[in-house]
Amino acid sequence: MSTHAFELVIRNALVATASDTFMSDIGINNGVIEQMGRRLGPGRREIDAAGRTVTPGGIDSHCHLDQPMAPPTKMADDFDTGTRAAACGGTTMVIPFACQFKGQSLKAAVADYHQRANGKAHVDYAFHLIVSDPTPEVLNNELPELIAQGYSSFKIYMTYDDLKLNDGEILSILDCAKQHNALVMVHAENSDCIEWLTRKLEAAGKTAPRFHAQSRPMLVEREATHRAIALSELIDVPILLVHISGREAVEQIRWARGHGLNIFAETCPQYLFLTADDLGIDDSYLGAKCVCSPPPRDKGNQSVIWDALAEGLFTVFSSDHAPFKYDSPQGKKPDGKEVDFKYIPNGIPGIETRMPLLYSEGVLKGRITLNKFVELTSTNAAKAYGVHPRKGTIAIGADADLVIWDHKPVEIKNSMLHHEPDYTPYEGMELLAWPGITISAGEVVWDGTNFYPRKGQGRFIQCDAPTLLPRRVTASQRD
Amino acid sequence: MSTHAFELVIRNALVATASDTFMSDIGINNGVIEQMGRRLGPGRREIDAAGRTVTPGGIDSHCHLDQPMAPPTKMADDFDTGTRAAACGGTTMVIPFACQFKGQSLKAAVADYHQRANGKAHVDYAFHLIVSDPTPEVLNNELPELIAQGYSSFKIYMTYDDLKLNDGEILSILDCAKQHNALVMVHAENSDCIEWLTRKLEAAGKTAPRFHAQSRPMLVEREATHRAIALSELIDVPILLVHISGREAVEQIRWARGHGLNIFAETCPQYLFLTADDLGIDDSYLGAKCVCSPPPRDKGNQSVIWDALAEGLFTVFSSDHAPFKYDSPQGKKPDGKEVDFKYIPNGIPGIETRMPLLYSEGVLKGRITLNKFVELTSTNAAKAYGVHPRKGTIAIGADADLVIWDHKPVEIKNSMLHHEPDYTPYEGMELLAWPGITISAGEVVWDGTNFYPRKGQGRFIQCDAPTLLPRRVTASQRD
Amino acid sequence: MSTHAFELVIRNALVATASDTFMSDIGINNGVIEQMGRRLGPGRREIDAAGRTVTPGGIDSHCHLDQPMAPPTKMADDFDTGTRAAACGGTTMVIPFACQFKGQSLKAAVADYHQRANGKAHVDYAFHLIVSDPTPEVLNNELPELIAQGYSSFKIYMTYDDLKLNDGEILSILDCAKQHNALVMVHAENSDCIEWLTRKLEAAGKTAPRFHAQSRPMLVEREATHRAIALSELIDVPILLVHISGREAVEQIRWARGHGLNIFAETCPQYLFLTADDLGIDDSYLGAKCVCSPPPRDKGNQSVIWDALAEGLFTVFSSDHAPFKYDSPQGKKPDGKEVDFKYIPNGIPGIETRMPLLYSEGVLKGRITLNKFVELTSTNAAKAYGVHPRKGTIAIGADADLVIWDHKPVEIKNSMLHHEPDYTPYEGMELLAWPGITISAGEVVWDGTNFYPRKGQGRFIQCDAPTLLPRRVTASQRD
Amino acid sequence: MSTHAFELVIRNALVATASDTFMSDIGINNGVIEQMGRRLGPGRREIDAAGRTVTPGGIDSHCHLDQPMAPPTKMADDFDTGTRAAACGGTTMVIPFACQFKGQSLKAAVADYHQRANGKAHVDYAFHLIVSDPTPEVLNNELPELIAQGYSSFKIYMTYDDLKLNDGEILSILDCAKQHNALVMVHAENSDCIEWLTRKLEAAGKTAPRFHAQSRPMLVEREATHRAIALSELIDVPILLVHISGREAVEQIRWARGHGLNIFAETCPQYLFLTADDLGIDDSYLGAKCVCSPPPRDKGNQSVIWDALAEGLFTVFSSDHAPFKYDSPQGKKPDGKEVDFKYIPNGIPGIETRMPLLYSEGVLKGRITLNKFVELTSTNAAKAYGVHPRKGTIAIGADADLVIWDHKPVEIKNSMLHHEPDYTPYEGMELLAWPGITISAGEVVWDGTNFYPRKGQGRFIQCDAPTLLPRRVTASQRD
Ligand SMILES: [Zn+2]
Ligand SMILES: [Zn+2]
Ligand SMILES: [Zn+2]
Ligand SMILES: [Zn+2]
Ligand SMILES: [Zn+2]
Ligand SMILES: [Zn+2]
Ligand SMILES: [Zn+2]
Ligand SMILES: [Zn+2]
Repeated sequence: MSTHAFELVIRNALVATASDTFMSDIGINNGVIEQMGRRLGPGRREIDAAGRTVTPGGIDSHCHLDQPMAPPTKMADDFDTGTRAAACGGTTMVIPFACQFKGQSLKAAVADYHQRANGKAHVDYAFHLIVSDPTPEVLNNELPELIAQGYSSFKIYMTYDDLKLNDGEILSILDCAKQHNALVMVHAENSDCIEWLTRKLEAAGKTAPRFHAQSRPMLVEREATHRAIALSELIDVPILLVHISGREAVEQIRWARGHGLNIFAETCPQYLFLTADDLGIDDSYLGAKCVCSPPPRDKGNQSVIWDALAEGLFTVFSSDHAPFKYDSPQGKKPDGKEVDFKYIPNGIPGIETRMPLLYSEGVLKGRITLNKFVELTSTNAAKAYGVHPRKGTIAIGADADLVIWDHKPVEIKNSMLHHEPDYTPYEGMELLAWPGITISAGEVVWDGTNFYPRKGQGRFIQCDAPTLLPRRVTASQRD
Repeated sequence: MSTHAFELVIRNALVATASDTFMSDIGINNGVIEQMGRRLGPGRREIDAAGRTVTPGGIDSHCHLDQPMAPPTKMADDFDTGTRAAACGGTTMVIPFACQFKGQSLKAAVADYHQRANGKAHVDYAFHLIVSDPTPEVLNNELPELIAQGYSSFKIYMTYDDLKLNDGEILSILDCAKQHNALVMVHAENSDCIEWLTRKLEAAGKTAPRFHAQSRPMLVEREATHRAIALSELIDVPILLVHISGREAVEQIRWARGHGLNIFAETCPQYLFLTADDLGIDDSYLGAKCVCSPPPRDKGNQSVIWDALAEGLFTVFSSDHAPFKYDSPQGKKPDGKEVDFKYIPNGIPGIETRMPLLYSEGVLKGRITLNKFVELTSTNAAKAYGVHPRKGTIAIGADADLVIWDHKPVEIKNSMLHHEPDYTPYEGMELLAWPGITISAGEVVWDGTNFYPRKGQGRFIQCDAPTLLPRRVTASQRD
Repeated sequence: MSTHAFELVIRNALVATASDTFMSDIGINNGVIEQMGRRLGPGRREIDAAGRTVTPGGIDSHCHLDQPMAPPTKMADDFDTGTRAAACGGTTMVIPFACQFKGQSLKAAVADYHQRANGKAHVDYAFHLIVSDPTPEVLNNELPELIAQGYSSFKIYMTYDDLKLNDGEILSILDCAKQHNALVMVHAENSDCIEWLTRKLEAAGKTAPRFHAQSRPMLVEREATHRAIALSELIDVPILLVHISGREAVEQIRWARGHGLNIFAETCPQYLFLTADDLGIDDSYLGAKCVCSPPPRDKGNQSVIWDALAEGLFTVFSSDHAPFKYDSPQGKKPDGKEVDFKYIPNGIPGIETRMPLLYSEGVLKGRITLNKFVELTSTNAAKAYGVHPRKGTIAIGADADLVIWDHKPVEIKNSMLHHEPDYTPYEGMELLAWPGITISAGEVVWDGTNFYPRKGQGRFIQCDAPTLLPRRVTASQRD
Repeated sequence: MSTHAFELVIRNALVATASDTFMSDIGINNGVIEQMGRRLGPGRREIDAAGRTVTPGGIDSHCHLDQPMAPPTKMADDFDTGTRAAACGGTTMVIPFACQFKGQSLKAAVADYHQRANGKAHVDYAFHLIVSDPTPEVLNNELPELIAQGYSSFKIYMTYDDLKLNDGEILSILDCAKQHNALVMVHAENSDCIEWLTRKLEAAGKTAPRFHAQSRPMLVEREATHRAIALSELIDVPILLVHISGREAVEQIRWARGHGLNIFAETCPQYLFLTADDLGIDDSYLGAKCVCSPPPRDKGNQSVIWDALAEGLFTVFSSDHAPFKYDSPQGKKPDGKEVDFKYIPNGIPGIETRMPLLYSEGVLKGRITLNKFVELTSTNAAKAYGVHPRKGTIAIGADADLVIWDHKPVEIKNSMLHHEPDYTPYEGMELLAWPGITISAGEVVWDGTNFYPRKGQGRFIQCDAPTLLPRRVTASQRD
């Protein structure tokens, strides 16, 4: 057997992958898992994980960091603070968005975004593209080139005035994704319905934060979900529907699956742990803290999401971290004012709480298996975005991105978190566990108490084609 | 690092688990996977798998071997020939059925079945129980004791006069399974409907083998499937519906999942590769070869089953190997006669072809991923029947039950198979791959050309509780 | 124009049929509507209906009158008191059940039941048969003869020990109905599930009336509904599912309709106006008053039934009047005792309140149209049971069975009703209307205050084949 | 009884309404049904209908007559020839469309359309409005006034560049319809999808007529149907989906109904009797004859439509008569040329064949009841568009618009039809019946051989609010 020592050996780990759970040592060299087994040779550093579960580091495949916004609004987390929070919450790779503005070159957006990331990230990262202006140049040249360069996924919007695409534009993008084997993420809400409801609410003087939820009811999401599925079916290309919030959208996705369509879906902590009541039961402005889109629904919809997570309807579980301070002129109070709901920046922080919330309330409370947790928080994101098996699992050759869990009571307080926002929507929740150690590329970045910065050591990871599905074989190859 | 040599090292394997695919050496000692990694130490025997895929050995969790039948009928395969064929087809564990006759003690059935297995098996095995007579003694004493002793699954029948249970009996057994954490497999066909249709067909002189299919149409399976789901829902206990054949049953299962019910399902090669036409398009008796229940349906239903496999609706893919010779008085021609369809022994052979059929037509033809193949043929069966992670995966500590695949054209001929039946329903099919090496507990039992007997070395494996679902946590523990 | 006078002319009626609403006089001779129009000739008696709605008299196609029961239980209403109550509630035809006991000849049951009706009824009547013992004699001889003699519908039970049929027996009866063009009404609840739940409840000491509802939850009805649909599909014959109580059964029926199956359905007032809470929120025995099967569900299920009524899912709206006194040894307190729920006679009175409840809460409160009311309470029953257009409409040649409605507030009190039971489940409900005049065969039998007996003048009406569906045309006739 | 004679008496009619079928004489004065009954007084003219079925005259509530088109295209039928053909086919009321052009005042469009109708129609007529430019003036002033003046329905388009509305515009119109109690008819096809597919087909040189069908596949209709339902749900107002063509749209409608939504639907003869093959199986231009939108589908979808008609899913059965000559520069060959499919005028003739097609193939071949025929072809249209009970039934006070049917073999030939187009898509079909006599307002306009012009006697009928649904009652009025 090989005689050299490992840089790091984790002993006696209860290793969990998306399919298996077993006892093993983990031997790491050069930031990569080199060997696993019993009685592995010595490491220069050793961690005894006896009695503790070790999972792949989380991949937060839907989060927003330092994304340019219209003034005065500014995201509270950049790649430094955002990946710091991620790491302390057990997430070792983030995939935020390089967003094209209408009129802008997509490559310029990507270049700008690299500038923002460069030298700041504590963990590895990749970029999704946001395509808001699918010109022929974008479709025929920029996207194919960017896909080839490792940007294999893009998000499109069916709502928001500055981002939304019409059905024809969506078809063009889906067609491009099909030709070049990329994955399109869809934000599915019907824009006109929201606008119509918003006008009605405003006309009735209903402008407090809580009316944000009334302006985007479930049917607005259901309709757009059905439409996105139809467009995907027309082009015959998979899509991934992001931040699914409740029953009606879930039923559309189930319907699509039952008809043989490759529709993937994502949900987020806010649809498991928040309800529309968190946007306010009266006109208090505090509800602005939980203004995000789609809005959280109700207890019944939370149950539907839990069931769908357990059953396999969802592919990934992301944070949709969109960090704004509450009490800030750059945040939830633009220019320092309590504004009408439609002017409140959309989004809530969650990059650090995502993993412990699902581990505690999902795994430890018996709602999902440990393997399903790994699949949802890490493995499937790696496959969807073309970084598996380098990322998303604990296996030979994979990056040594790991979480060792501490089972212990933890009350969530914003003061203990490492993001910049001045609040967390989950303040006061009592969890049963928290990441005890986070390892990124073989280095301990969080030990349960302290954060060990790796600023600038987080690498940009090129994304290949998705591997959630079998490679396409033509009918003639089949028969 | 450890200095002892391995008994066996497999080098450069493209290892596939139910979630991951990665390059690794596999180091085996005492029939168990001790280490994986790059540059593993030497083995007393080494196999170079460079360029080849290595999957966990198959678990055929629905097969019938040497199961006592009413004379003159006799199964053609016993534990010797059955596990020989299994091994040569890449299956390293079988779970046939210890069947209680009405009036018989269940323990006696188990004891008898151990007699039949003892000293014969070439690979490991476990038993499901078939409960046909759920007396209070069986429910209150025998089942609890047997579950504790490693028989954690039982099959029940909603049809066949000598086996079928009424709804009340099924409820009793489901309740017992719930109390003792066992898994009930359900053969779902409506007995009265079959009997009524059979009488009508007989009255019309329609007794050729092909009328078997007409006597058990899809709705017969759909109704029983819905009923089984309802009974499972009433008791609040998971079930596994075996040998699902087509759309209508699939839709019931999808409906159940969408309502938060834990309904698992199995399908078999005959529902992917055969149709009712294989039972005859005229009155030829050759159709008897493909008489099995439920009968194969049509091309449209095959597609539904393929889609459902890819989508995750099915939990396991088993053979339902029920081996009878065609041209034998103990087989398809009872006492040497060509009998009416209702007297033809039900079942087809398939233990050896199951794995290569799905590997070639599923994985290599792009219908399912390699990981899904592993999940369906091995991992999920291990979880469903409580032998995971010892079985069902390639991971540290798991039994070294492995298949190394050869990608090469193979035309299926019965003459090359190792079972006893004088035919295979898949005669003449051309596949793209076949197991090149099968390893059972670290020993090569099939090398692509030769079978290396391990008669009697196959071990009885005790089955624990299923691990497909998270452990139950009571509401009070949750909140 | 004709010069003879009418026996009775109703002037200025706002006539409602199942499809139309229009102003007309109605000229009646010999108990039959002879002419309609404006400026009809004079009547020996005239009623001015100006400003009032006139509907066809109700047909209560599911009610139990003087049906023999096991001692000490005895129905409180016979054909005298039952049809008296019917008439005062706007119902001019009843179709109760001639029930075969196991071992009994069906013809004998019919003969006995004619004895009970003879000379007593105030309005017209027909009989459904209850088939509890489908012997070859019954299937091959008695049923065909009885159908030919005007008994074209029969009810079968999937529960109740003394009545229930197994699936094979149901198939035989459905086949007979198909051959002879009769309509089978199905009471769909899964017997074994009820028995199992009842045993569990008893074992837990839960024997108060309210546990009746827990012993027959919705899924018990859903399962049997699905099964009945499957059996109907197998035989390819329509069925009518009686007393549908809520969402899950409704969804099964909608599913069947969507698959081209001819599944008819009935609901009853108790599923619109009562909930399981009416069986008790504590262990009080008063809940016995509302013990019926299936049990009322909850508010959500009431809404589903209302929507399904409006939408056209239901074919008929009947009372399922099964009259027992509460405080009687022949009624809800067998031998004078407060018994366990499973011994409480099943059924509630409702023959007199059915029409005004639906008219007030359905039509006047805007949930269904007036025409839908007529269709549900009269026309469709006439078609389903083969007495249309003699019954079920206001049209030339139809029997002059009419209701003239008074729109006025009415508080339901048992003291104002004309049935024999000592209670009504609807005590205290405030309605907006009540039948102001009921006319049976051209004779006023109720004038809003007084009942005018027609004892013995109610006629037995022979039922022909159902006319809900187009007559069957064979494929060869089509093409 | 009254002593004056009738203008017309129809003796011994087998009268069919949407609910009932019965024998009666029909006495008519001033074009209105004054009396019905047996032994009615004498008429100045009498028709003996003994042995023959008499139905209400058809209402063709979706047809296009003399609708202004972009040059060179021109509709082949105006109010003269269109209502002539209608009458000879048993239709006694037509409701074509007054179409607003973008930029045009809606009132101007109505005024123009009255000009076109004035003095020409042989039978009564009303107008739907087509709203293509919902300006504030249109929404706030014109529509409310027009609704009050008898234009209570409007059609909106989700496709066609010159007509299509975006979702926000649709919401505005639905809201207006809700406020003023009007009914919105929706042409549901996704415009962007059609455009995208058309571009792809063109790029591939696929421009023959048959590719019209490929440019608008079922999913394009399904998506728009779902979206229209969602918009209707948001506003909480009923809609009527026109010209539904097959399974996927039917399933959306059934889904909506099952969720308590008031979604009405229409289908047309082309979806029962044509398939996409009628647009060509090769590139022949003859397929242009059957180019209409949505395109006919296939046999399977025809069955779905038949089942849905029988089951009650459809509210009305209209022709969507859009008359163009095939061999004409104003018709299917614009400027005399065989053009690409996207330039072929959309629409097929059918105003004269609608009633006999459904009567023969529906009623006489046992697919729907006679009453359902009446409901679909006449009564429900009258209710949907606010002209019931003056129109749509045979009842006292209704206009004497009647059809007396001849049961006899008829082979459809364009030469025998009375429309202007030079073809019928149904050439050569053999029917079992044809209108023997059509009576409009008490006058015979067609006697089975000859057409008796009533040019200019056809009246404009003001439409009131729809009466398909119960009048709305507010929750407070209910409780
Ligand atoms: Zn989004
Ligand atoms: Zn986002
Ligand atoms: Zn079986
Ligand atoms: Zn089997
Ligand atoms: Zn009943
Ligand atoms: Zn009853
Ligand atoms: Zn249209
Ligand atoms: Zn049209």
